[in-house]
Amino acid sequence: MDNMAEEKVADDGSIRRWRVMMLVILLRVLALFATAAAAVVMALSKESRTFAVPTSGNTPVKITMTAKFQYSPANIMFVITNGVATLHSLLMLSLMCFVNNKYDIKGLRFITVTALDMVTIAVLSGAATTVAFMGELARNGNSHAHWNKFCDKFERYCDLGSGALLASSIGILLFMLVNLVNIFERGRFNPYKNPISA
Amino acid sequence: MDNMAEEKVADDGSIRRWRVMMLVILLRVLALFATAAAAVVMALSKESRTFAVPTSGNTPVKITMTAKFQYSPANIMFVITNGVATLHSLLMLSLMCFVNNKYDIKGLRFITVTALDMVTIAVLSGAATTVAFMGELARNGNSHAHWNKFCDKFERYCDLGSGALLASSIGILLFMLVNLVNIFERGRFNPYKNPISA
Repeated sequence: MDNMAEEKVADDGSIRRWRVMMLVILLRVLALFATAAAAVVMALSKESRTFAVPTSGNTPVKITMTAKFQYSPANIMFVITNGVATLHSLLMLSLMCFVNNKYDIKGLRFITVTALDMVTIAVLSGAATTVAFMGELARNGNSHAHWNKFCDKFERYCDLGSGALLASSIGILLFMLVNLVNIFERGRFNPYKNPISA
Repeated sequence: MDNMAEEKVADDGSIRRWRVMMLVILLRVLALFATAAAAVVMALSKESRTFAVPTSGNTPVKITMTAKFQYSPANIMFVITNGVATLHSLLMLSLMCFVNNKYDIKGLRFITVTALDMVTIAVLSGAATTVAFMGELARNGNSHAHWNKFCDKFERYCDLGSGALLASSIGILLFMLVNLVNIFERGRFNPYKNPISA
């Protein structure tokens, strides 16, 4: 009777662990797609506009101006950061699926994964916040610094940037969720029986 | 004999826990000072300069211009964020020192503290990165957007901003360290015996 009860408990535990593992994999895959989308959309944000400049003659001179993401260091940083976060997700997924959990010596694997996740969250958050404030500057300008807005002229460029920002924000939330699920499950169980430390 | 050995192990455990607790308190106090310094220095960054503008007459007209942190939304956000992080450190320190650990029901207290720490790290990192890139813009300008630099005219203002950024960065590193120590200690021990969950 005791034996049966114990088996039932063990079964419940492994079912729970299986579910949590599936949840972590799902969240990691979604985060991967979110950061990849953010990097790609930002990297493709480019807009050329042709303006007619009135001159003293009869025919106005036409000038073509281009807005590219490479023109702003903040946007370059955003693309690199989201790219690195995508690679990080890939690495963690492969670590989880292909490397046996028995190599978690004294919890070092768990804390390494947690530390990497935390740094990724901090860096992603830095990039997203910077792009958000640069976008605000591009939309409204700053009269004190005599910096003029340009989103009224390059609407599509600014909209693509906003889209990338939205994708990156979703990615950050998913990263936080994964990290918290990992930490919570580790804290709940005895560390040496928990298979989802990665 | 067995009894003595057990007692020795228990003693080692409590000494270790005590040391870790002291370490966490030290790191939290240092983080508190770092973020408070960042907020205060940024909030006090103000510089007035008088420029002589040559006119067609004999006496040049003098214009006084002022650079204040309030002129940039990024700097306002930086001050608020670092202030909130300081309050967060205070709250965590009082929680650790005055609230008994037995109220940690099913690890909820631990995960709440970890989640709050993580959000604080993300928000602090966002503010610091934004101010860093805005500073780069203020120092070098951006020729593509026709945004001119102004740090050559308001040197002290820009230097104060850099100082605040340095303090905030140290604060972020300390926050990360506290969070990792907390999580690592939680993962190492059985959760219901670990007194440093806060």
